[in-house]
Amino acid sequence: MDNTLANLYELSEIVDKRFSHGEDIPQNIIETIRSTVSGKGFIGLAQINPIAGNIEYNAKKIAKYIKYACKINLDLIVFPELALMGYPIEDTIDRHPVIVDENVKWLKGLAKITTNTTALVGFIEPREKNAEGKKYFNSVAILKSGKIQGIVRKSLLPNYSEFNDYRYIEPSPAVGVQPAETLGVFGKDKIKNCSKIFENYGISICEDCWNNKEFFDKHLYEKDPIEELAQENPQIFINCSASPTRAKKEQLKHNMLSFIARKYNTPIVYVNQVGAIDNSSFDGSSRVFGADGELIARAKSFEEQLLIVNPQQKIGKIYPLTKGLDKSLNEQKIFTLEYESDLERTYKTIIQGISDYFKKCGFKRAVLGLSGGLDSTVCAVLLADAIGEKNVYGISMPSKITSKESRSDAEELAHNLGINFTEASIRPMIDTTDECLNKLFAEVEQKWDGRYKTSFTPDNIQARSRAMFLWGISNEFSSCIPIATSDKSELYMGYATINGDMSGGFAPIADVPKTKLFAFARWLNKNRPKKNAIPEAIILKKPGAELAIDPKTGKPLIAEDALMPYEFLDEIIWRIENKNDGYQSLINTEFVYEKHNPITREQKIEWLDKFFRRMSTALYKWSILPPSVIVESRSINKYDYRQPITSSKINYKGVNDDYIKTTLTSD
Amino acid sequence: MDNTLANLYELSEIVDKRFSHGEDIPQNIIETIRSTVSGKGFIGLAQINPIAGNIEYNAKKIAKYIKYACKINLDLIVFPELALMGYPIEDTIDRHPVIVDENVKWLKGLAKITTNTTALVGFIEPREKNAEGKKYFNSVAILKSGKIQGIVRKSLLPNYSEFNDYRYIEPSPAVGVQPAETLGVFGKDKIKNCSKIFENYGISICEDCWNNKEFFDKHLYEKDPIEELAQENPQIFINCSASPTRAKKEQLKHNMLSFIARKYNTPIVYVNQVGAIDNSSFDGSSRVFGADGELIARAKSFEEQLLIVNPQQKIGKIYPLTKGLDKSLNEQKIFTLEYESDLERTYKTIIQGISDYFKKCGFKRAVLGLSGGLDSTVCAVLLADAIGEKNVYGISMPSKITSKESRSDAEELAHNLGINFTEASIRPMIDTTDECLNKLFAEVEQKWDGRYKTSFTPDNIQARSRAMFLWGISNEFSSCIPIATSDKSELYMGYATINGDMSGGFAPIADVPKTKLFAFARWLNKNRPKKNAIPEAIILKKPGAELAIDPKTGKPLIAEDALMPYEFLDEIIWRIENKNDGYQSLINTEFVYEKHNPITREQKIEWLDKFFRRMSTALYKWSILPPSVIVESRSINKYDYRQPITSSKINYKGVNDDYIKTTLTSD
Repeated sequence: MDNTLANLYELSEIVDKRFSHGEDIPQNIIETIRSTVSGKGFIGLAQINPIAGNIEYNAKKIAKYIKYACKINLDLIVFPELALMGYPIEDTIDRHPVIVDENVKWLKGLAKITTNTTALVGFIEPREKNAEGKKYFNSVAILKSGKIQGIVRKSLLPNYSEFNDYRYIEPSPAVGVQPAETLGVFGKDKIKNCSKIFENYGISICEDCWNNKEFFDKHLYEKDPIEELAQENPQIFINCSASPTRAKKEQLKHNMLSFIARKYNTPIVYVNQVGAIDNSSFDGSSRVFGADGELIARAKSFEEQLLIVNPQQKIGKIYPLTKGLDKSLNEQKIFTLEYESDLERTYKTIIQGISDYFKKCGFKRAVLGLSGGLDSTVCAVLLADAIGEKNVYGISMPSKITSKESRSDAEELAHNLGINFTEASIRPMIDTTDECLNKLFAEVEQKWDGRYKTSFTPDNIQARSRAMFLWGISNEFSSCIPIATSDKSELYMGYATINGDMSGGFAPIADVPKTKLFAFARWLNKNRPKKNAIPEAIILKKPGAELAIDPKTGKPLIAEDALMPYEFLDEIIWRIENKNDGYQSLINTEFVYEKHNPITREQKIEWLDKFFRRMSTALYKWSILPPSVIVESRSINKYDYRQPITSSKINYKGVNDDYIKTTLTSD
Repeated sequence: MDNTLANLYELSEIVDKRFSHGEDIPQNIIETIRSTVSGKGFIGLAQINPIAGNIEYNAKKIAKYIKYACKINLDLIVFPELALMGYPIEDTIDRHPVIVDENVKWLKGLAKITTNTTALVGFIEPREKNAEGKKYFNSVAILKSGKIQGIVRKSLLPNYSEFNDYRYIEPSPAVGVQPAETLGVFGKDKIKNCSKIFENYGISICEDCWNNKEFFDKHLYEKDPIEELAQENPQIFINCSASPTRAKKEQLKHNMLSFIARKYNTPIVYVNQVGAIDNSSFDGSSRVFGADGELIARAKSFEEQLLIVNPQQKIGKIYPLTKGLDKSLNEQKIFTLEYESDLERTYKTIIQGISDYFKKCGFKRAVLGLSGGLDSTVCAVLLADAIGEKNVYGISMPSKITSKESRSDAEELAHNLGINFTEASIRPMIDTTDECLNKLFAEVEQKWDGRYKTSFTPDNIQARSRAMFLWGISNEFSSCIPIATSDKSELYMGYATINGDMSGGFAPIADVPKTKLFAFARWLNKNRPKKNAIPEAIILKKPGAELAIDPKTGKPLIAEDALMPYEFLDEIIWRIENKNDGYQSLINTEFVYEKHNPITREQKIEWLDKFFRRMSTALYKWSILPPSVIVESRSINKYDYRQPITSSKINYKGVNDDYIKTTLTSD
């Protein structure tokens, strides 16, 4: 890279920093960059972090970038899918159409501030009232010289996992550009016979480039918009996207984009949204591939950035990808306890998830219980990093079961992190509640049978008393929410207390399995600026809620004794989520756990039966889980996975044909 | 109706009753019915109540009906959409494909028990592994003479409100019947050029008949499967359906089916699922229209039934429709406080919702707090009716704010209902919690500013202490869940305590607005066998949570003083949900409330601003709301309406063009 170009990226980083602090860009920087890029085929990849439905906020941000792009005279500046609205916006546009009107008004305003630089801005396009199909298109407007020059509309609408496009969006019957006058009135009967490309750009939206018939074995859609665009020989493909980190492994995306560029001998520019909207965390990592399929440029992951590239001159900069985003394609096919390669991605995904949830909702502070256990520990570290240690309050809330070590571990952790810490015993509350409830239970028992001989009631009272403290603080102090510390493995087992540890304003690790949390804790100790903030004792101790005494040992109950080994549990979860394995294939194939812990078939069956039984009755808990961050390739997040709670009687084992015959023919 | 036919319906009711009790049908009844219907063009409409994913349960139920239909030698017996799987099944089929395998196996078993009678059985049809598009079809199998004779697949896939078909179902490229050998291997390239109709039946599935181009002004889809079927002149249209009561008003359905019959001069047989699956309550009310569009037969609402009809001989029986299902088409266009006409439907929808949730999940008993207020009162009545009064425990949990009247009203209600009742003071818990928390707050305040001068903390502690009692009972006694008593108006305003009154295993009235609850209470008093179970005082008192004292009055705070008049509030909600009204049109059009309570524009603005502000911050609460019953035409149920929580900064008022211009052009 010659000096001018090195300079371009150095100066651009200063520009990014100034943008993020809301500062003006010094004139001399603008001049220098302009002299390098003006009118020479440079394109800006503006990966921005929008707020869902906050049109003014998004429009102002877009305007800032457009004005700058015009000043330095870029040929083109590209924003992500639905940049004006934020993606996903879900049913909001249907119930509150005012935001659709607003996004069109602001779009027209944005058009007016463009000069020679073309800007591609994603927006929700309303359709004519009685048009056939859904009410909206997912569109990109081409803005230039003070006007809307054309509209591109999304043809392929994902409707799996967290995606719901088809709920409210009509698939576009036309690929590529249609004239500006079709805005708001476009439909199958209004397709203009015009060029699909604009100034040599072949423009598409997200899923539109995910259906290459050669690259993929399985095709969700019939149409391949890129193939259609390619017929008109654009000089550059542009794809405006909003793709969360987990939806597809990066390597798949990389290979696919590279394949498309090479196949059509055409560079491709891919611009992805960054930031989190509720449960979905978008990684940015926008990039450009040359006509030979080679990666020319890649923006940062998990940060807003305007990356300037020149696809035809092969000018760009490849920023390092967050480790874990680049997982290889076959890596997800076998369960492994080697989480190392995915932990940086896990970390940044959750940090962004927390910090954007707080910022976008207007929260500043978090309070959580510190039990001295792994779950609350990892949550505390993540919160300290996401919202600042002074904004985190850790409360140790010992009961009579809580060990001295748990208390001192919690305190040491808080000290290491620099978060606020105090201790508040729940014993008076437990005592009073127990007394009140025992009286009440005796009363109830006079009319009702079925009182359990041994129950989880005392365990739950402890967990709920703690939540009462945390919600109390959140009610008493402004801009503060309590944190739900449940992890994925335990949520699968319903091993979490309603209105207790699974309750909170946000659940940072609800999609992180326990075995990964152990690796994660070690990774945090190694990779954070302040090393070893997590006391080794916390990582070494066997997880247990310290809510009950195990009658067999006389010591606090160990979770694995109540459930099953986490290594075994996490493999079941992984195989169900990633390979759709059922009961029979789980029984009949060897687990990683079995390689070094030989177990009998009876033991395996006992654990599997327990798993399916507990999972079936955990469905209700999944449905009331607080907002969380989707991390793994599949989750139990209610906006990602839906199963009727009343389906708890599913027979996951299946039956054989003889059984069916006998059952149906008997009278 | 001649004697034989009157006899047919009398005997059929005995059959229905025996089926519902799991009893055998006496041979003489079978003989009598058989002699009337055998081989004469009679059709059975089998509206059954399936359990989602419980294939064996559903298959056994279907088998029972098929065997009976064969014995009496019906020409045809028709089951609802996805009868073997239950509708909706959602993502379950994707994550747990074993249930799809099972539903195919049981389907084949069912085919084997058929004789001369044709049976139409809905099921999920898996597709070939690499087939283009989604993995499944939503299909109906035609079973006869021991074999699958053909398959019909759904073409139009609803994806609005609670419907999610397109998430996992591929729209069928072919209308009508395809040969049995296409089972599991059908696709666009496998369409057989065969007759679309089977033995003169033109068969379709649910949404397939909802796109008539003449009847509807707005069309969601291009295709009209009924029009295609009509080309082959079937003698009877059959539609297998699963349509919850609220999705479309009955009158619309009635008019549409009648229109189709008349237009094509062909009778139509419509079979609807009955029962509730989680939040969706299906009403059954299956029916038949003659070739002239006249209603010939209608099954009961909210009950399993096998209704025998003869569309061509115009033989049928019209059971009374639950009042409210027949609301006229224009009734929904204007907000009204006249709820009377809809209350029977409301009642049955919720009763079925509660009772099926309990049955299908295996719960038997419910415990709820009785405050002496309207919400908990109506919940108690509904629970007593849905699961039996002895299975309900009402607990009065007074605090120091609770009035003597509230306590005696609660007790009187419990007595009138015959439910179990006891009183348990929360004062010791409040005192202990307050003491613990005050200490803790003082501690926290040393590090954190922003402590509220007046907070809701004490109010919330009361609500949470009560929930602690209720969850305690649910933990201690088998098969028991606590009930969340929040109503729709208050949920809109976020006027419900997290882990308090909005917490529970089920929320019966979460979709009933407050003004409707008043009318509902009066209706219950008038229409239940035991009259006036609800003390008049409960209906007359102004709602208030009795959690805090109003400093202005020195008495417990009245909710309307904290919020706004319920009549005004409910009209905003209704207009937003039903007419997509925005802030500006709400300001500029007269409310029903204003007709008899003149208010200033400032007052109106104050209320509207409060509404939009509170609704924006209630989104989190909506996301963790327990399972409930969707009652109204729109709801905030998370499986029906989705809005990102981080969209709380939406500007519902919009801005004008000048503001946009100034904002975007300023530097």
